[in-house]
Amino acid sequence: MKRGFGSDNHSGISPEILQAIADANMDHALAYGDDEWCQRAEALFREHFGPQARVYFVFNGTGANVLNIDAMCRSHEAVVCAETAHINVDECGAPQRVVGCRLLTVDTPDGKLTPQLVRTRLHGFGFEHHSQPKAISISQPTELGTLYTLDEIRALADLTHSYNMYLHVDGARLANAAVALGCSFKAMTADLGVDCLSFGGTKNGMLMGESVVLLNPCLWERDRSGMKPQTDDMKYRRKQMTQLCSKMRFMAAQFEAYLTTGLWRRNAEHSNRMAQLLCSELQGVDGVRVMYPVQVNSVFAQLPADVWHALQEEYFFYDWDEANDVVRWMCSFDTTEEDIRAFVATLRRLV
Amino acid sequence: MKRGFGSDNHSGISPEILQAIADANMDHALAYGDDEWCQRAEALFREHFGPQARVYFVFNGTGANVLNIDAMCRSHEAVVCAETAHINVDECGAPQRVVGCRLLTVDTPDGKLTPQLVRTRLHGFGFEHHSQPKAISISQPTELGTLYTLDEIRALADLTHSYNMYLHVDGARLANAAVALGCSFKAMTADLGVDCLSFGGTKNGMLMGESVVLLNPCLWERDRSGMKPQTDDMKYRRKQMTQLCSKMRFMAAQFEAYLTTGLWRRNAEHSNRMAQLLCSELQGVDGVRVMYPVQVNSVFAQLPADVWHALQEEYFFYDWDEANDVVRWMCSFDTTEEDIRAFVATLRRLV
Amino acid sequence: MKRGFGSDNHSGISPEILQAIADANMDHALAYGDDEWCQRAEALFREHFGPQARVYFVFNGTGANVLNIDAMCRSHEAVVCAETAHINVDECGAPQRVVGCRLLTVDTPDGKLTPQLVRTRLHGFGFEHHSQPKAISISQPTELGTLYTLDEIRALADLTHSYNMYLHVDGARLANAAVALGCSFKAMTADLGVDCLSFGGTKNGMLMGESVVLLNPCLWERDRSGMKPQTDDMKYRRKQMTQLCSKMRFMAAQFEAYLTTGLWRRNAEHSNRMAQLLCSELQGVDGVRVMYPVQVNSVFAQLPADVWHALQEEYFFYDWDEANDVVRWMCSFDTTEEDIRAFVATLRRLV
Amino acid sequence: MKRGFGSDNHSGISPEILQAIADANMDHALAYGDDEWCQRAEALFREHFGPQARVYFVFNGTGANVLNIDAMCRSHEAVVCAETAHINVDECGAPQRVVGCRLLTVDTPDGKLTPQLVRTRLHGFGFEHHSQPKAISISQPTELGTLYTLDEIRALADLTHSYNMYLHVDGARLANAAVALGCSFKAMTADLGVDCLSFGGTKNGMLMGESVVLLNPCLWERDRSGMKPQTDDMKYRRKQMTQLCSKMRFMAAQFEAYLTTGLWRRNAEHSNRMAQLLCSELQGVDGVRVMYPVQVNSVFAQLPADVWHALQEEYFFYDWDEANDVVRWMCSFDTTEEDIRAFVATLRRLV
Repeated sequence: MKRGFGSDNHSGISPEILQAIADANMDHALAYGDDEWCQRAEALFREHFGPQARVYFVFNGTGANVLNIDAMCRSHEAVVCAETAHINVDECGAPQRVVGCRLLTVDTPDGKLTPQLVRTRLHGFGFEHHSQPKAISISQPTELGTLYTLDEIRALADLTHSYNMYLHVDGARLANAAVALGCSFKAMTADLGVDCLSFGGTKNGMLMGESVVLLNPCLWERDRSGMKPQTDDMKYRRKQMTQLCSKMRFMAAQFEAYLTTGLWRRNAEHSNRMAQLLCSELQGVDGVRVMYPVQVNSVFAQLPADVWHALQEEYFFYDWDEANDVVRWMCSFDTTEEDIRAFVATLRRLV
Repeated sequence: MKRGFGSDNHSGISPEILQAIADANMDHALAYGDDEWCQRAEALFREHFGPQARVYFVFNGTGANVLNIDAMCRSHEAVVCAETAHINVDECGAPQRVVGCRLLTVDTPDGKLTPQLVRTRLHGFGFEHHSQPKAISISQPTELGTLYTLDEIRALADLTHSYNMYLHVDGARLANAAVALGCSFKAMTADLGVDCLSFGGTKNGMLMGESVVLLNPCLWERDRSGMKPQTDDMKYRRKQMTQLCSKMRFMAAQFEAYLTTGLWRRNAEHSNRMAQLLCSELQGVDGVRVMYPVQVNSVFAQLPADVWHALQEEYFFYDWDEANDVVRWMCSFDTTEEDIRAFVATLRRLV
Repeated sequence: MKRGFGSDNHSGISPEILQAIADANMDHALAYGDDEWCQRAEALFREHFGPQARVYFVFNGTGANVLNIDAMCRSHEAVVCAETAHINVDECGAPQRVVGCRLLTVDTPDGKLTPQLVRTRLHGFGFEHHSQPKAISISQPTELGTLYTLDEIRALADLTHSYNMYLHVDGARLANAAVALGCSFKAMTADLGVDCLSFGGTKNGMLMGESVVLLNPCLWERDRSGMKPQTDDMKYRRKQMTQLCSKMRFMAAQFEAYLTTGLWRRNAEHSNRMAQLLCSELQGVDGVRVMYPVQVNSVFAQLPADVWHALQEEYFFYDWDEANDVVRWMCSFDTTEEDIRAFVATLRRLV
Repeated sequence: MKRGFGSDNHSGISPEILQAIADANMDHALAYGDDEWCQRAEALFREHFGPQARVYFVFNGTGANVLNIDAMCRSHEAVVCAETAHINVDECGAPQRVVGCRLLTVDTPDGKLTPQLVRTRLHGFGFEHHSQPKAISISQPTELGTLYTLDEIRALADLTHSYNMYLHVDGARLANAAVALGCSFKAMTADLGVDCLSFGGTKNGMLMGESVVLLNPCLWERDRSGMKPQTDDMKYRRKQMTQLCSKMRFMAAQFEAYLTTGLWRRNAEHSNRMAQLLCSELQGVDGVRVMYPVQVNSVFAQLPADVWHALQEEYFFYDWDEANDVVRWMCSFDTTEEDIRAFVATLRRLV
C-alpha cells in the first residue's frame, strides 16, 4: 500500500526504534518490567515529566486510557470529557466495561473543554442516585487536531482540584503537541497540575508502546485499606485488565530510543510540518475548506462528497463527519513532500 | 402447601412484623432511608452491635454479601472462604460479576475455617500475577448448621488483622447462632474483631430485610481519593449494584420490630428448639443418621436413597449431597411439634 | 411527615395491597418464585400484556431497568435514550457497572425521543471501535411527565426493528400513562412492537414490587450457545445481579391484587386527577408557570427562587432544574384535594 | 543478565522473527488487522488448524485466555479447570473482572483434568443459584510440563460436548507439546473436537504475539440477537477488553515467519531437547529429584532448601512449591548445552 493520509498508525517503525529493539535482543532479561531497560526508561520518564512521575507501560492507547481512568475513579464515579473524546467515541465502551464508570460528555465546538463547559456537569455531589464526578479528561492535541494553551490547561487543573477531582490528559500524540507549543512534556503537564496522562509512542514511530504516567502521588499513595498505606494497586490493576507485557524490555527499549535521542521531537516536528505543507497546498483547490487551525499533524477538510468519494478510491482515509462532508487527513513521521504533492495533484484532478 | 422442612424462607411473616409494616403505613415519608423509621432502626443496630456500627439495608442476602465484599475488596483482591460458603456456591457468581474479585476456597470437614486452613491461601502477596488476599469470610452458623465458638472467631480475626485483611461474617441466620451461643450480637462480632457482616432477618420471620453492618471504621473512613477523606462510598455502591430500596421505612420498621421486642430471639429459639426435637425424634429411626451436631435450626441426615426419594413426594426438601444420600431439613419460626411428629411418622412409615 | 408532593414513593401502601400480603401469609410456600401466587400473577401479566409475555419480578426500578438492558445488550453494545432518562441520570451508573455497556444519549425538548432524534445516534455499525447500538429505551410517561402517543411508540418500534434492535419501555409509572391514554397495557406495548419493559408498582401503591416483562420471544429463545437452544438465561442473570427475591409470594400477591381488582387503574386515575387539580389551582398564582402539559401525576413549575426555597421549608420537593427555577411536584394515590388546597394556599401566601 | 532457567519469556527474539518485523517495515498498511500480512497469517492458521479456523491476534496470554473465555461463557456461566491452571492462578483474577464468570477448579495430581475429575464439577444445571458450567479449559502442556495424549483430549472433548459445553486449550506453549507428541496442531486440536484455543508465540521466540483460535463455528455463528445471525461479536469484544493492536501487521509478520519457516518447530524441539539434557545431567546430583516426566521444556525438581536458595543467588528461577522445596527450571529456544553444563556444575558445587 502506498503511503497515504489515513492515520499516523498506518506508517511503520522508525529505523532508530527498530535498531533499539535489535540492540536489546541479547541474552536473558527478567520479564514483566524487572529489567535494566525498564529502569532506564523509567528514569527517562522522570527526566521528561518530573521526579515524582511513575510510569506503567501498556500495549495500546485503549489500555493506557482505561488504566488511567481506573486509577482515578471507582465505578460509581464519573469522568467529564468532550463528546468527541477518544475515550467516549473510539474505545467501544472499554471504560464502561472494565472500570464500570460513567463518562459525562460535553458538546464542544472544537474538541476542547473549558471551565465553563465542565461546570455544566459538576453537580449532584453527595446525591447517591448520580454518578459522582471524579475526573476530567482532555486530549492534547484533541481529536480535531486543536491544542490547549498552557493557560487553558492550568485553568482546567485549578477547577478540577477545587472539586477534589483529578485531571487526565490523553496524550496519544503528546509529542506533536509539545513541538507545536514549543515546550517540554513537564511544562505542559506536571507544571500545570495535570494528575496523570496517557503518553503514546506508537503513532509517532514506535512499533508498539504506550504508557500511563502518574504525576500526583495521591494516585498511588492513597491509603485504600484504611489500615496501612498500600504502596501501589496499579500493578495488579494493569495485570488484571490484561495489559501486562512479558518481554517488557523491548517496549522499554523503544521508549529509551524515543526519549533519549530526540526522536520523539524529530518525528513530531516532521509530521506537523507535513500537515502545514498539506494545508498550504490545499489553498486554492476549489471547493476544499480546511476546518480547524492546523496545529499538529492532522488536517480536517470539507469538500464535495463526489470528490472525496473519488479520492478514497485512490487513497484510504476516514470521513470524519459524513453528514457535513468533512474528512480527516493525517500526516506521519514518514510522510514526504512528494506524498503531499502527489495527493494534492490527485485531488486537483478530481475536483 | 403444608408446612415442611424445605427452608426457613418457605415460612411466611411473623405477625409482629406484619403489624409493624401496617403501623408504618401512615402519611408520607422520605424515600431511600431518610425517614424516622430508618433512624430508629439504625440506632437499634448501634445498640446491638456497638456504637460504631453503620448499617445499610438491602433487599436480600446476595445483596448483603456482595455489598460487604465490595466494601472490603477491589477487583484484584480476593476473599478466602470455605468451599461450602454461600458466597461461593449459591450466589450464581454474583461476587465475580459485581465486584470482579476472586474467592479463594478451602475444603473443610464441617463448613468452618480455621487459622490453619486459611493460611494455606495466604501467599503471593506483592506478586502481581496473583489476586491479593484481602478478606476472610465465614458463615455463622455455617451452611452445615455448625457454629464457631467465640474463641474460634477471635483467632480468625487476629489472623486476619495480622495480614492487614478484613473479617466478614455471613450472618443470614445470625440470630440462630446468637441464641445457641447465648450471647449478644455484639459479643459475637464487634467484641471479637469482626469487621463487617451480613445480618439477615428474612429467614427468621421478616417479610424481606437484610443488612450490611460495618463495624470497622476503616471501611468507611478510608481516604480513597488521597486528597481528602471520603465520608462514605457505601451509599453509591449500594445504589449502583441495584440494592437501594425506595420505601425503605417498611424495611426499617421490620427491623425495628425484630430488634426491639425480642422477636429475633423468640423466633430463633423456637426454630432451634424444633431442630433439637426433630433430631431427637429421629433417634431410633432405622437407617437415618444425623450428620453434624445440631446446633441451630437445621438437621442434616443421611438415609437410604429410596427412602428420601419417597419422602420428597410428600414433603419438599433439598438433597445436600446426593452422592452420599445426605439431605437437609430446616426448621422455621412457625414449625410446630405436630409438624415434626407428622414428618417423622411419615418417615418411619417409609423406612 | 405530612403528605406532600415530593415523590410518589413518599406515600405508603394501598390498603388492598397490605391486605393481599396478609392474606398470602399462610403456611409455607416454595421460595424464589415457585409458588401459586407467582403462577397466578404471571398469568395476570399474560392477560394484561399478551399471551407471550414473560415476567420476572425484581425488587426495584433500578433492578428492572438493568435486567432489561442486560436482556437486550452485551457489553459492547449500546442503548439509545434521552439525556433525561432515568437509566442515564438516576441509576448511579448501574447499567455501566452491571452490564458494562454504553448509553448513547440524545438531548430532547420534552424527554421524548423521536425517530429523527434517534437516527442521530445510529451509525458506526460494524466498526469495532464504536459500541454497537442495539436497543432504544423510552420512558412512558417520561421523567418530565409527558406522554408518547401510540403512533409515536409504533414509529419508534418500527425504526428500532428496521435496525435489528430492541425497544424497551421504562414503565415505572406505566399505569399513569395507561389511564391517561385510555388504553390497556397491551395496546400501548405489545401491540405496538415494544420488545420489553420495566413495569412498576411501587410508585402506585405497592409496598415493593417491580418487574421485567419480556414481550419479544427472541429475548429468551435465542440460541446463545450455538449448539442447542437455551431456554432462558434470564433467571441466572436476575440472580447474579442480586435481584432474586426469596419470599417471592409476597411480591406476587401484591401484583395479583394490583392487577385483578383494578387497583392499578383506580390509584393512577386518582393521582393523575390530583395533578390536574393542582395544575388548575395553580392558575392565577402570580409568578408560577407550569412547564409541560400535565398528562400524568406530575407538575413541573417554574417560580421565583425565593418562593420555592421558602415553600421547601414547609414541604419537601425536588428542584428539577435549579438553574432555571423549575421544580417538580408529584401527586400520589393518597393525595387528597385538601392536600392540594393547603399546598396552594401556602404557596399563595409565600408569593 | 546471563542466560538462565527462569522462564522461556526471559529469552529474547529469534533472529528470523526480528527479520520478519524489519521486512514488514515498508510503506503504509491499514491498522487493526486489515492488511496483507494479517491476511497471509490468517491463511497460515487455517493451514495449521483447519479451514474453519478463525484467528484473532492479541497482545499477551492473559488477553488470549480471557477473550477465549468471553467467547465461550456469559458471566453466569463457569469454566471447569485444574486448580493449577494459569487462568486460575496467574491472571490476577482477569477472567472474573473482565468476563465476570466463575472458575470451577479441580485438584489434580499432575495438572491434568480427566473426565472423572471434571464430572465432580458438572452439577447444578438449571438451578439458578449456581453458576452454569459451560466450558472446560485445559493447558497443553500443563503448567507442570505434563502432556495430554490425543486420546485423553478426545475423551475430554466428548464429555464436554455431551454437556453442550465448549473445550478450550491454553496453548501458550502448544508448539512444545506438538513436537513432543509428534503431531500437527490440527491433529491435537481441531481433529479431537477442541472448540477454541489460546495459541502463543512469545514464549517460543517471538517478540510479542498471542492469538485466539476459534475452531467451532458455533462460537461465531451463534444467533445471539434472536433476530438475525450476528456475523461476529469477537472483534468488538477484543477491542472492548483493550486487546486490539493498531500496527497489527508487525504481529502478523511474526506469526507468518513462525508458521511458514518451521521456526515454531525448530525452536520448540530445541528447548524440549535442552530440558531433556538438563534432566539427564541432573541424574546423580545428590538430593535432587526430578518431579514429573520431562515432556516439554520445563524441569521441576525437588532439592534441599539451602541448595536452591544458594543457587538462586547465581541464577534467577521460581520456586514452584516452596513448602515442598520444588523449583521450576525452564529451557528456552536459545538455551545452549554450555548453559546447562555451567548450571549443573554450579548446582553440584552447592550440593
